[in-house]
Amino acid sequence: MLTRRVLLFIRAKEVFMLPAQRMASVQPSYIRNILKATQGNNVMSLAGGLPDERLFPTRLLDNAARELDQNIEVYQYGLTRGLPALVEHLCAENNLPSDEQLLITTGSQQGLDLICRAYLNPDDRVLAEAPVYLGALQAFQLAQAKVGLIDATSKGPDLDQLEAKLAKGCVKFFYAVPDFHNPTGTCWSKATRIAVAELLDRYEVALIEDVPYRQLRYSGEHLPLVSSLMKGDFFLLNSFSKIATSGMRLGCVQATKKLLQPLITIKQASDLHTALPMQQMLLSLLQAPEFEGHIASLRHHYGQRAQALANALISQIGGRLTFNEVEGGMFLWARINCVNAVSLAQECLKNDLAVVPGQAFWPEGKAGYQAIRLNFTRLAPADLEKAVGRLSSAMSAL
Amino acid sequence: MLTRRVLLFIRAKEVFMLPAQRMASVQPSYIRNILKATQGNNVMSLAGGLPDERLFPTRLLDNAARELDQNIEVYQYGLTRGLPALVEHLCAENNLPSDEQLLITTGSQQGLDLICRAYLNPDDRVLAEAPVYLGALQAFQLAQAKVGLIDATSKGPDLDQLEAKLAKGCVKFFYAVPDFHNPTGTCWSKATRIAVAELLDRYEVALIEDVPYRQLRYSGEHLPLVSSLMKGDFFLLNSFSKIATSGMRLGCVQATKKLLQPLITIKQASDLHTALPMQQMLLSLLQAPEFEGHIASLRHHYGQRAQALANALISQIGGRLTFNEVEGGMFLWARINCVNAVSLAQECLKNDLAVVPGQAFWPEGKAGYQAIRLNFTRLAPADLEKAVGRLSSAMSAL
Repeated sequence: MLTRRVLLFIRAKEVFMLPAQRMASVQPSYIRNILKATQGNNVMSLAGGLPDERLFPTRLLDNAARELDQNIEVYQYGLTRGLPALVEHLCAENNLPSDEQLLITTGSQQGLDLICRAYLNPDDRVLAEAPVYLGALQAFQLAQAKVGLIDATSKGPDLDQLEAKLAKGCVKFFYAVPDFHNPTGTCWSKATRIAVAELLDRYEVALIEDVPYRQLRYSGEHLPLVSSLMKGDFFLLNSFSKIATSGMRLGCVQATKKLLQPLITIKQASDLHTALPMQQMLLSLLQAPEFEGHIASLRHHYGQRAQALANALISQIGGRLTFNEVEGGMFLWARINCVNAVSLAQECLKNDLAVVPGQAFWPEGKAGYQAIRLNFTRLAPADLEKAVGRLSSAMSAL
Repeated sequence: MLTRRVLLFIRAKEVFMLPAQRMASVQPSYIRNILKATQGNNVMSLAGGLPDERLFPTRLLDNAARELDQNIEVYQYGLTRGLPALVEHLCAENNLPSDEQLLITTGSQQGLDLICRAYLNPDDRVLAEAPVYLGALQAFQLAQAKVGLIDATSKGPDLDQLEAKLAKGCVKFFYAVPDFHNPTGTCWSKATRIAVAELLDRYEVALIEDVPYRQLRYSGEHLPLVSSLMKGDFFLLNSFSKIATSGMRLGCVQATKKLLQPLITIKQASDLHTALPMQQMLLSLLQAPEFEGHIASLRHHYGQRAQALANALISQIGGRLTFNEVEGGMFLWARINCVNAVSLAQECLKNDLAVVPGQAFWPEGKAGYQAIRLNFTRLAPADLEKAVGRLSSAMSAL
């Protein structure tokens, strides 16, 4: 009798408590999977996309935290859209005609997840540049969308491929990171921006423009948002993780009132609203006269590091890898010759160095394509040189 | 030519940018819909589920905010599961054998949403007591689940109905708020708890036990968690909104490591993790020696208010409505005679009083059933009496 109960129990578990179908297609994050391995004391990490906590605006954060007691209402439930004063500030900063065109989210990742949940049915088609930001891939996979890939070039997505895929029809979104793409570091040229905007308008496909790194430009000229060149629908995703701090989890989505409404409905059912004390602290930061100087300082330091990493790669590794120098962002994408990138990443871990093999940025890998993504914002220039030494040793050992 | 472009554009909008199918079944929140109407200066609200901000632990919150500068790492990206020190604290408090049995969420609402996304396929069956907490209904609707309703009695769900629905098979979850149910205020009897646990084990159906009000007991004896009486699978959802503060948006989910894993995968793709400075501040609060006294003070004040509301209803309205007194929580559920509850709620708004008509807590209303939900935690006893005066006037005007 007991045995029968146990057997029934096991059967029931198998039948009923399996995860939902949407879970089947979600790719685990290589970076988060190796996070524990990278937390050892001696491990140097070029793997994550972390800002340097030594460059956090600590004095401004302390002030913001101390000022919370002047705004006791931030501890109460609030509006799903966000803290009214922050929404207003951001709308003014972005010249939005109405507060109803912006939604505060728990990081820009939530903004993307909300767009997917609000608009994607299973098997809907989405296009993205490949290699793709892994968090975007996960959000599309959770929504059971079909992701069509457009090869990245040094100037942005391959326009012929993009047009061919758009011409096939039934595409719901094109997802793009035009400013200092993750993982490639590429900044789209102005001509590419104009051409993509024109193509999306022509084929009446909405753009999801994700710009977490836009304010981190170290050289070259500021270029227009792709969405600003469009006549048609778009969502613009912004993050405060790179310029303020990432642990606070704050981002925002801009779109027309009509396009945003379903996102607000879902956000209400999924977490009511984003933490208000965090929103109040961000507002304090953004309003502080010193904040512009803080961003300038980030640009200065991160720009130096991008250069230091590039120099170290050239001097210590030379012809064994190739890369394009970057004008901003957090990553350098290095193509490697004669070595398998996954084996290299494993060999690096043995040398107390974490890097991400390029294969992690394709839904099913990319045969014959060997690259690694290197983050340069977390370590100081001298440490970046040391890290490249470990990379060089790992390459030699293979 | 322009006309053709415009027409094509409109057609494309209609075909492609319609919200996803899952949006079709999500019920808007009555409370959030009337939130703006209740923000006028003269409006008294018994409609929301808000704690009283005058009873927030302000000194503890100020200390917690000031101490953030000692934990600069909370501004960096962190683990999806939650701030390790908070996870550890909560696991110890709840006698969990492993840190892997708990996940910190952006309010318990997110915990419920993650469970739904992780385990529910469209058309899966979920059972819940009716009337139902609206936020739960929204999460189930977003997951396109079929919600089967079990009538609530004064001791908990109708056990015969529950067994009949379980016996039909293919039920994935039973969702329950056994401690001071929202909206009815009911606390399940011990016998009901034992019976429900036994039924769920017998039919091998997992429980989602949602206990946001469990620590707000004003009279009567503490009863065991239903999940603690079970042998089978369960998720236990906890919220810190009622005992700490709601604007911080913090909750947690307890379950076995295996059951939690898909939730962590989805949380990673949906917001990476919950704001770490909020988690650190909650930990400060929970560790403060004064925090237990703060909860005792909440119980004292809210208990007085529950009594004040009950007294005022009896003395000012008498036989025109009936209700069961409550032993805890935030709500009193009043059945009304001879008056339509939706009309009454509208009439109340004209009298600067917000209440929620009971119909809002059924997916499709409940014919012939007239009730209103009254919150008693936000207003002081004298104001509750005044509010009941307005309710009485509204009833008389109909």
